[in-house]
Amino acid sequence: MQDHDVVGIGNAIVDIIGRCDEAFLVKHARAKGSMQLVDAATVAALYDAMGPGTEISGGSVANTMVGIASFGGKAGFIGKTADDRLGQVFRHDIAAAGVTFKTPAAAGAEPTGRSLILVTPDGQRTMNTFLGVSPRLGGGEVDAELIRSARIVYLEGYLFDRPEAKAAFRQAAEIAASSGRQVALSLSDPFCVDRHRAEFLQLIRNSVDILFANEAEITSLYETGSFDAAARQAQADTKLAALTRSEKGSVILGEGKSITIPAAPVAKVVDTTGAGDLYAAGFLFGVATGRNLETAGRLGSLAAAEVISHVGARPAVKLADLARKGGLLD
Amino acid sequence: MQDHDVVGIGNAIVDIIGRCDEAFLVKHARAKGSMQLVDAATVAALYDAMGPGTEISGGSVANTMVGIASFGGKAGFIGKTADDRLGQVFRHDIAAAGVTFKTPAAAGAEPTGRSLILVTPDGQRTMNTFLGVSPRLGGGEVDAELIRSARIVYLEGYLFDRPEAKAAFRQAAEIAASSGRQVALSLSDPFCVDRHRAEFLQLIRNSVDILFANEAEITSLYETGSFDAAARQAQADTKLAALTRSEKGSVILGEGKSITIPAAPVAKVVDTTGAGDLYAAGFLFGVATGRNLETAGRLGSLAAAEVISHVGARPAVKLADLARKGGLLD
Repeated sequence: MQDHDVVGIGNAIVDIIGRCDEAFLVKHARAKGSMQLVDAATVAALYDAMGPGTEISGGSVANTMVGIASFGGKAGFIGKTADDRLGQVFRHDIAAAGVTFKTPAAAGAEPTGRSLILVTPDGQRTMNTFLGVSPRLGGGEVDAELIRSARIVYLEGYLFDRPEAKAAFRQAAEIAASSGRQVALSLSDPFCVDRHRAEFLQLIRNSVDILFANEAEITSLYETGSFDAAARQAQADTKLAALTRSEKGSVILGEGKSITIPAAPVAKVVDTTGAGDLYAAGFLFGVATGRNLETAGRLGSLAAAEVISHVGARPAVKLADLARKGGLLD
Repeated sequence: MQDHDVVGIGNAIVDIIGRCDEAFLVKHARAKGSMQLVDAATVAALYDAMGPGTEISGGSVANTMVGIASFGGKAGFIGKTADDRLGQVFRHDIAAAGVTFKTPAAAGAEPTGRSLILVTPDGQRTMNTFLGVSPRLGGGEVDAELIRSARIVYLEGYLFDRPEAKAAFRQAAEIAASSGRQVALSLSDPFCVDRHRAEFLQLIRNSVDILFANEAEITSLYETGSFDAAARQAQADTKLAALTRSEKGSVILGEGKSITIPAAPVAKVVDTTGAGDLYAAGFLFGVATGRNLETAGRLGSLAAAEVISHVGARPAVKLADLARKGGLLD
């Protein structure tokens, strides 16, 4: 098998993106900016109520892998789809983006996962995710050879929401550790952190080499209202952490230092979906290819800025070209 | 039934939009900027070869009806979908946009129509359309009451590509004429014009009140290389014609005059899909609501500029708000 820079494991999701106003979120009791798990009936009812949609392949870690490929890195993905139309869409798009994806589609009636993403006029996204067959990725389906082929294995916190996926997560982390690979983790969502705080803390202290979190997630993890207090605890608990702060940029904690990276400029924020995923893409690409932490952070900022300037959580242009124009790649 | 400003009849299509370079078009023998009809196998092969996709409801006249609703007009649509996922997507999106749509879904195995749209770096789109069940709109399914409820009936030239749809087209034109409604026609595509030139000319001279064509279509219709020569012939053949010329704006021929309307400014052309459809939306909304020809043309330019500034052939913002900002609506 060819070598990979990063292999990711996560939920295979197709995004259905629509616009709504603030009143719609209030009426349907959605917490703005969050990801909420919903059942099939709720996703159908919300779809009926929402405006016209745009369908684009998504899934947090899958977006990150597509971003790494767009930078010119070698990325692989492990995740579960069904053999239905959305599954075919997901499979087509990730392969077309150049990401290694070999997980077989599941048989049976459970459909491919989907997330109804409601974008408010300020560009903020509120996600309503029906996981469908996605968490049926059993431990037996984690491709050990694929994981060993990568410098870094990247796992999404969302996998903790279902027991089977959590087993796959733990197995992947063990394979990576026993092969001397680095393990990276995204905390995914503040409510996800709240659901699994103790397990996440244990994992971060013992098994995680690179931690990704945004301000809401890291303050949720440490149950503090202060970003600085949370960052100090993260610095004590992790070897390397990248904490994102929207328009305030990001803070990288590692090698005994704290490096502040400014956000890259954006003419107009259209849809913030995927901002964290693409930051992680730039940062992981940078680290996996031996760049210094500041450059890795700047690659993350660049990718995040690109993805929030249009609808959808995957890059619309080749990130390698953008990075070359910005003087971050040769 | 409530009154409508415009009711449109056309193919019900979901667009699958991907990016490609010029070499891809050459390799797959696609004529840039055109719409080519393809079979199920070809659409599948092209999908396999193309990059990641974005799915957004489309269909030329359907896009126009959504644009009219976005201006605050009352629009209805008649077109055929299947009871499959893409059909549900089409049905959801057009209803969510506020367009009256009551055509029942077809039973049977034929799927909902789809168009693979390849967008090159210059923003130009090349369409590869598998019509699926779309042309199965029989004459018996044209809703006479809905047509009579509208000031203008808008028909797409693409309907001429299949005998059943052509019968529906002719029936709708007859109902409209016998009820004193205006009939508007889009020539759709230069190759479509080439396939049906004699019939289109006869129709334009005898049954059409408002003609829409772009430069390639009108010069194809009159088999001339000169836009000015084609425009002179159109002025002789039609009561009212709106001829679009991309960045050169449009020329409106009517009431014995020729009015040149500049294109509205666009910061960056992202995807030209839907430019003509949305120009028609603004123009038809203007004419149906009693505005003068220059204002109608400016509403068309405004809507076209909005839709080419992002991916997808339907407006991303409320056109009524844009028009008010631009001083074109109160």
